[in-house]
Amino acid sequence: MNLLEKTVTNIKEVNEQVRQEIRNYQNQLTKPPGSLGILEELSVQIGGITGQSFPEITKKVVAVMAGDHGVCDENISAFPKEVTPQMVLNFAHGGAAINVLARHVGARVIVVDVGVATPIEHEQVLFRKVKAGTANMAKGPAMSREEAVQAVEVGISIAEDLIAEGYQLLATGDMGIGNTTASSAIMAAFLNITAREVTGRGTGLDPEAVLHKAQVIDRAIAINKPNPQDPIDVLAKVGGLEIGALAGLILGAAANRVPVVIDGFISTSAALVAGKITPKSLQYMIASHCSAEMAHRKLLEYLKLKPILELEMRLGEGTGAVLAFNVIEASLKILKEMATFESAGVSQSV
Amino acid sequence: MNLLEKTVTNIKEVNEQVRQEIRNYQNQLTKPPGSLGILEELSVQIGGITGQSFPEITKKVVAVMAGDHGVCDENISAFPKEVTPQMVLNFAHGGAAINVLARHVGARVIVVDVGVATPIEHEQVLFRKVKAGTANMAKGPAMSREEAVQAVEVGISIAEDLIAEGYQLLATGDMGIGNTTASSAIMAAFLNITAREVTGRGTGLDPEAVLHKAQVIDRAIAINKPNPQDPIDVLAKVGGLEIGALAGLILGAAANRVPVVIDGFISTSAALVAGKITPKSLQYMIASHCSAEMAHRKLLEYLKLKPILELEMRLGEGTGAVLAFNVIEASLKILKEMATFESAGVSQSV
Repeated sequence: MNLLEKTVTNIKEVNEQVRQEIRNYQNQLTKPPGSLGILEELSVQIGGITGQSFPEITKKVVAVMAGDHGVCDENISAFPKEVTPQMVLNFAHGGAAINVLARHVGARVIVVDVGVATPIEHEQVLFRKVKAGTANMAKGPAMSREEAVQAVEVGISIAEDLIAEGYQLLATGDMGIGNTTASSAIMAAFLNITAREVTGRGTGLDPEAVLHKAQVIDRAIAINKPNPQDPIDVLAKVGGLEIGALAGLILGAAANRVPVVIDGFISTSAALVAGKITPKSLQYMIASHCSAEMAHRKLLEYLKLKPILELEMRLGEGTGAVLAFNVIEASLKILKEMATFESAGVSQSV
Repeated sequence: MNLLEKTVTNIKEVNEQVRQEIRNYQNQLTKPPGSLGILEELSVQIGGITGQSFPEITKKVVAVMAGDHGVCDENISAFPKEVTPQMVLNFAHGGAAINVLARHVGARVIVVDVGVATPIEHEQVLFRKVKAGTANMAKGPAMSREEAVQAVEVGISIAEDLIAEGYQLLATGDMGIGNTTASSAIMAAFLNITAREVTGRGTGLDPEAVLHKAQVIDRAIAINKPNPQDPIDVLAKVGGLEIGALAGLILGAAANRVPVVIDGFISTSAALVAGKITPKSLQYMIASHCSAEMAHRKLLEYLKLKPILELEMRLGEGTGAVLAFNVIEASLKILKEMATFESAGVSQSV
C-alpha cells in the first residue's frame, strides 16, 4: 500500500457517542436549546472528530500550497504567471493578507512549493516540488497519474508532520495563478456540468474573459476526458499540483482525527477531490466562508458544507479559513465556560 | 433641547475623503482589487466614521440592556418572565454566552437594568430603570412618550460614558423575555406590513404559538395605532425599554463618531428606530450577523445593512455582535500590516 492508500484506510467514522454527549450537555447550558446555531454544531463536530467531550484547540496552522498552471498559456487569468513565485516570497516575508490574518488569530503559516514553475529558495518555503508547474490542460493532461498521487502525498506528509508537532486545527490555503480555472474544471468534471455553469471571475476577469476561460475548460475536458469515477484521474488531467496537495492535507487530517478548515473555491475543489476519494473525509471538514467566486456556493451545497462567514472574499491563500478560526474556538469555549440552568438558577422553557 | 435632540443634531455625515483615501490605498496592497470583499468595506466604513486613515481599535464593549414586557401576559414566549432577572444575574456572574464570547474576543460586558420588572441589586448591574417593565401592549401603549424618550436617553448617556472611558467600538446586546414580540411589532408598524410576515419563533415557539404571537401583535397595532412617521410614538406604543436604550446607544455612538455593532433581531429593531429618528445614524452601524429569527434578514435588507456572520443564532445578548469583533479588527490590521505591490515587488494585473 502506498501512503495515499494507507491514509484512506485510516479514515474512520467520527465518534457518534461523543457527538450525542455534547448535544445533551449543550441543552443544559443557559440558553434556549439550539439558539447558538452553527456555533453548537461546530463543537459537536469537533467533539466527534477528536473524541473529546470538551475539545481544546491551542495550536493552529494554515498550509499554503503553491503551484503553477500550464493553462495560463491560454490567457485565462487577470494576473501574469510570475505572480505565483512573487506571492510565495511575499508569504515568506510575512506581508500578504494570509500572514496578517494568521497573526491576528494566532495561527502559524507554512508555505509549500508543490509545483511553482520557477525555482524558489527561501528558508521559510518548504521545498516539495513535484513538478515545475502543470502542463497546459487545454492541450493534454495537466500531469501524469503518478505526479497527481505524489502531490496528494505531499499534502498527507505535511498534515502528519504538523499534527506530530501538536497542531490541533489545520487549514487549507492556496497560491497559483490560473488555479480557479483548474478548480472549475475539476468541478465541471465531477458534477458533469458545463464549464459555463462553474466558471467565475477569478482574480478579476471581465465577462468576455470569463467566457473565454469557460471555453478553455470545455476544451480541456473534451480533450482529456477525465473519469469522474476516478478522482486521481480528474486531478491529474484537469487539476493542479497545489490542489492535489490540499486534498492530501485534508485526507491526512481526517486520518489523524484532526479537524481541517476549508478556505475558498480552490480549497473546496480540493475538498471535492478528497470527498470523492473517500466520502468519510467530509466529516472532518469545516467550511470557513462562501466566497464571491461564482460556483463556490453551489460546490459547498453539493458537499453539504455550511460556511461560517459571508464576506464576499475571493483571494484564497487561506484568508477565509483563518478568519473562521476565532468562531471555531468560540464554539469550544461556549461548551467549557457557560453556566448550566442548574448552576445559574435559571428557569427552563415552559 | 433635551439630550435626545442634542444628540440627533450632533450626528453628521461620515468623512467621505478618508473613505476614498482608504479605498485608494487598498488597491495598492498585494491582492486583486476588492478581493477581500466586506473586509475592505469595513475598514473604509470605520475610517469614514472615525476620520482616521489607519483606524485602531483596542477597547471594545458590549452593552446588554435588559427590560421586561407586559405583553408576556398574553403567553407569547417559550420562557417565563422570571428568566429576565435570572439571566441578568447570570450576566453579572459571567456565566452566560455573552460573557464567554466577550472574554474570547477581549471585550467588556456591561449590563444595564433599563426596565426589569423585579428589583435587581448587584454591583455588576447598572441601575437605570425607567419603569418596572412595560405595560401589556395588547391592551394599550407599552409606555408613555416620556418614558420612551427616557429609555433612549439612558442609552445615549451610557454610550457617552463608555466613549469617555476610551471605548472605540460599541456593540448592542439585549435581554428581555417577550422582546421578539416587541421587535416584530416595531417592524410591522414601520414597514406597514402584517404581523404574520415578521413574527418568528423567538426563543423556541412552535408554529401554532407563532401564529398566536402574530395575532397578539396585530391586536397591539390595531389598538395603539403607532404612527410610523413618529419613531418615538412607535417605540412607546409597541416597543420596549431595552429597545429604546439600544436605539439610544446607537445614536450616542453615531454622535461621537464611534462605530456600533448591531447584534440580532431585537438590536436591529432598535437600529430601525434609530434609523427612523435620523437616517444618518445608519452610516455608523455594522451588522454583525443574520440570525435565525424569521424577519431578521428582511429587516437588515430594509436597512441596507450587510451581515458579517451567518450562524443561524437566535439568542440575542449581543452574542453575534461580539463574534463579529474579530473580523472587524482583522479588517483594520489588513490596512496597517499588508505589503504593497511596490514594497513586495509583486506584479499588478495585466
